[in-house]
Amino acid sequence: MEGPDAKGLIYHVTTVLYNNECNIIRQDEYVSPSGQFFMRTEFQAEEGLDPQKVLNDLRVRVPNEEIKFRANPATKKDVVILCTKEHHCLSDLITRFHFGELEANILAVVSNYDILKPYVEKFGIPFHHISAEGISRVDHENAVLQKIGEYNPEYLVLAKYMRVLTPNFVASYPNKIVNIHHSFLPAFVGANPYKQAYDRGVKIIGATAHFVNNDLDEGPIIAQDIKAVDHRFTAKDMAREGKETEKLVLTKALKLVFNDRVFIYGNRTIIL
Amino acid sequence: MEGPDAKGLIYHVTTVLYNNECNIIRQDEYVSPSGQFFMRTEFQAEEGLDPQKVLNDLRVRVPNEEIKFRANPATKKDVVILCTKEHHCLSDLITRFHFGELEANILAVVSNYDILKPYVEKFGIPFHHISAEGISRVDHENAVLQKIGEYNPEYLVLAKYMRVLTPNFVASYPNKIVNIHHSFLPAFVGANPYKQAYDRGVKIIGATAHFVNNDLDEGPIIAQDIKAVDHRFTAKDMAREGKETEKLVLTKALKLVFNDRVFIYGNRTIIL
Amino acid sequence: MEGPDAKGLIYHVTTVLYNNECNIIRQDEYVSPSGQFFMRTEFQAEEGLDPQKVLNDLRVRVPNEEIKFRANPATKKDVVILCTKEHHCLSDLITRFHFGELEANILAVVSNYDILKPYVEKFGIPFHHISAEGISRVDHENAVLQKIGEYNPEYLVLAKYMRVLTPNFVASYPNKIVNIHHSFLPAFVGANPYKQAYDRGVKIIGATAHFVNNDLDEGPIIAQDIKAVDHRFTAKDMAREGKETEKLVLTKALKLVFNDRVFIYGNRTIIL
Amino acid sequence: MEGPDAKGLIYHVTTVLYNNECNIIRQDEYVSPSGQFFMRTEFQAEEGLDPQKVLNDLRVRVPNEEIKFRANPATKKDVVILCTKEHHCLSDLITRFHFGELEANILAVVSNYDILKPYVEKFGIPFHHISAEGISRVDHENAVLQKIGEYNPEYLVLAKYMRVLTPNFVASYPNKIVNIHHSFLPAFVGANPYKQAYDRGVKIIGATAHFVNNDLDEGPIIAQDIKAVDHRFTAKDMAREGKETEKLVLTKALKLVFNDRVFIYGNRTIIL
Repeated sequence: MEGPDAKGLIYHVTTVLYNNECNIIRQDEYVSPSGQFFMRTEFQAEEGLDPQKVLNDLRVRVPNEEIKFRANPATKKDVVILCTKEHHCLSDLITRFHFGELEANILAVVSNYDILKPYVEKFGIPFHHISAEGISRVDHENAVLQKIGEYNPEYLVLAKYMRVLTPNFVASYPNKIVNIHHSFLPAFVGANPYKQAYDRGVKIIGATAHFVNNDLDEGPIIAQDIKAVDHRFTAKDMAREGKETEKLVLTKALKLVFNDRVFIYGNRTIIL
Repeated sequence: MEGPDAKGLIYHVTTVLYNNECNIIRQDEYVSPSGQFFMRTEFQAEEGLDPQKVLNDLRVRVPNEEIKFRANPATKKDVVILCTKEHHCLSDLITRFHFGELEANILAVVSNYDILKPYVEKFGIPFHHISAEGISRVDHENAVLQKIGEYNPEYLVLAKYMRVLTPNFVASYPNKIVNIHHSFLPAFVGANPYKQAYDRGVKIIGATAHFVNNDLDEGPIIAQDIKAVDHRFTAKDMAREGKETEKLVLTKALKLVFNDRVFIYGNRTIIL
Repeated sequence: MEGPDAKGLIYHVTTVLYNNECNIIRQDEYVSPSGQFFMRTEFQAEEGLDPQKVLNDLRVRVPNEEIKFRANPATKKDVVILCTKEHHCLSDLITRFHFGELEANILAVVSNYDILKPYVEKFGIPFHHISAEGISRVDHENAVLQKIGEYNPEYLVLAKYMRVLTPNFVASYPNKIVNIHHSFLPAFVGANPYKQAYDRGVKIIGATAHFVNNDLDEGPIIAQDIKAVDHRFTAKDMAREGKETEKLVLTKALKLVFNDRVFIYGNRTIIL
Repeated sequence: MEGPDAKGLIYHVTTVLYNNECNIIRQDEYVSPSGQFFMRTEFQAEEGLDPQKVLNDLRVRVPNEEIKFRANPATKKDVVILCTKEHHCLSDLITRFHFGELEANILAVVSNYDILKPYVEKFGIPFHHISAEGISRVDHENAVLQKIGEYNPEYLVLAKYMRVLTPNFVASYPNKIVNIHHSFLPAFVGANPYKQAYDRGVKIIGATAHFVNNDLDEGPIIAQDIKAVDHRFTAKDMAREGKETEKLVLTKALKLVFNDRVFIYGNRTIIL
């Protein structure tokens, strides 16, 4: 749940759960300095309890419509992955999925290149190659959107998908697209960020997983991590180590997202 | 609060706080696999509210005596620090205290050596040198206990106090003594642990802050951290870097303890 | 090269390389406190230069037989991987190998279980299931050794191979077997280390990659790393996160080993 | 030494040292992709050997004037520290100095405020308060430069000195001024960087120690490190944790600088 803070919110929610004979396993709250209240409650319900019944009871008890409740069952999310040529994030997700260790079902992989097709198909996952050659950006994106739509996924994962999305695309999956960004510290913009990082002589490089909104690379950050480098790292070495960090950060972020632990508030994430 | 988990505990606590017009700022819960429930609630009360009134209301609402409630005001803790010859943990705490950045008042420093006396006294903190030379262990410890007792501290901090405490001493401040231990990974026991770590060729060294109980170095762990080393580190280098880690870990642990965020459960800590 | 330190060793080596028109790209030295000298020199030779010629020149210039020289070409190492049931280390190595990012050729995988066979065979790598059921330890080990021998590997990687090796096995590949150990901090010995770590309430868990010698889990350490945990981690959660660390540490260690950067000196490694 | 790479450089240097009966303790080299060669050699000389004699021999043997040699004795550096109001970096350096653990002598502290004067003077270190009130930037800077000049330091340390230096000031101590910068990841420019970092919802904050050149905050980076934060950190919490990181990074950087391990090459540092 989230909404403007008010006295008694925790009390009201726990009362409703108590009356519905639910046992709270874990509960975390956060109140932002601006007064927005967030709470995530993990609970076990008696068999047969309809989540909608709980939501209705909450609404009756807390009539303020600004306060929003969601009830997410503890099931795996359906996702489609978009990628281009690099395998490192994709192969990590597919390996975890193959061995039943991902909190998601990978329904399909869509790519503007066919380089990773043989790898993906080893695991029985559909791979759709939609080339961007010779067609307009809009036409390519529409073809990608249509193919994704066939799978009706809850989340899209951009596992090094190297194309900029249009606002129309982003609006089709609001707050449901997770990207991994090769950001250095400080972040270099423009072409060849690794070359810039090398020239600047940085001692740490990093990566950022974030939700995608209309400002490229500017959506709410879910997870970040870094790796120490030194003067012996060439731009190519930095790129290689950067990929390792990207892989770790994306996996960490998706685990949080797929477990319904991430709230979006403006351009920030609250992780409970 | 802590005690055996039961349906409605969060509900009951939040009801009592609601009825007393307290606003919850932060609340964290944890239920152990064995079914023990822990909750820490940070709240703002109306001026003039007696904490005892809230505790009484809680007791009425939750009569089960196995469930324990505590109400800690947000004030600085009174502490006495014990040390021997090494300054690194002591000077870090004193510097923070001097600049008003420690969540504690350092009432006094007691040491079995007088080496650190000039440093401590620069800051107007009483320094008591109680030598262990020529007297029995018990007599020394009693002298130390008596001196500490004059200050009536809530917590004792062993900032590299290199003497083993007797069960009698520990029993005088149950769960109120915090120690920093130079533990490596794996931990080497016996004399000269750094020499052993060097001989074993470890690539990481560490430190552990823990409450003291009767089994030496075996009380509940509050915080741990490590530092990477390599083959160029001599045993002496490891000792030097180990001290840096000890300092960081002790400071981190004390911040948690002084903010009333640490629950002790058997030989484990729950940090909420 | 390695051997007892003596004045002029760097001078003699660089003289020989200079005379053979080799250009030094990178050179690192280390002298142990006990006076053992280690040096790794990466150089580019003129085409057609016989490494044996350089080694002969070095021997003439430095006749002391205690000082040993090796010349390793910059080629991928041949390895056989041993595993049991867990995939996490194996799949990471195979993924890197499949995409040409491992500094080794995986010639085959040998396992006492057939669980990972379908995964391994997707990548065209031979998988040999040699069950230990119903045969003696010695007979099983001999069968494994014989199968490995068919591939004539330079290194063996124990990617969560859950059987203790006999001294005879270890002696067959001296200083050529790399193992990954689920070591906590402090390290718990005996059955179910994660249960012990949980009971102890540790705040960090770790993993150690090491060469295998006759003392189980006691060979020279190549790499170690840790991961912070907290009271919310069950023993099962610790095991899961421990696996992530094992994977990272084994990969890091193998990269060093396969690049000929690791010297073994007694029970320690020197990494140049 | 540093200069354009050429075949035999290591050979020539080690020959000269060998002929002067010096024993090499540690030697590290680096060749940049652009072909610049760097080497740091730590050696023990026979008593009475004049460093100038070695430098002369090197010049004879390697006449190329583009290749520069330096000989630094293993003595403590003389430094003056500049600060403003914040104590965290200053007190860490002074504590280490007081206990003989800094590789430098702190000759004096100069500040545009007098807030830290009582602390500094406890340790017998001269503190000079040079207010910037009511005088021009140039006049203030000249007064500071003159005061510093009285101590003839080798290095200046900006321990949270919150004033921008003019090119004239920087030119007075070329490549001898070390600053600590409160840089986030990504780095935010302009006023109140912590507020910006909070608004952006970053999950890591960091700090950067660097040499000062004429582009503010743009000189060669010596060391960087980060600290994980989460949504519970207010801008003020971030600032507090940022200070901890600043302290660690500055100390680490100064240790490298004072041990003559840092080479500057364009806008990058080579650390050998």
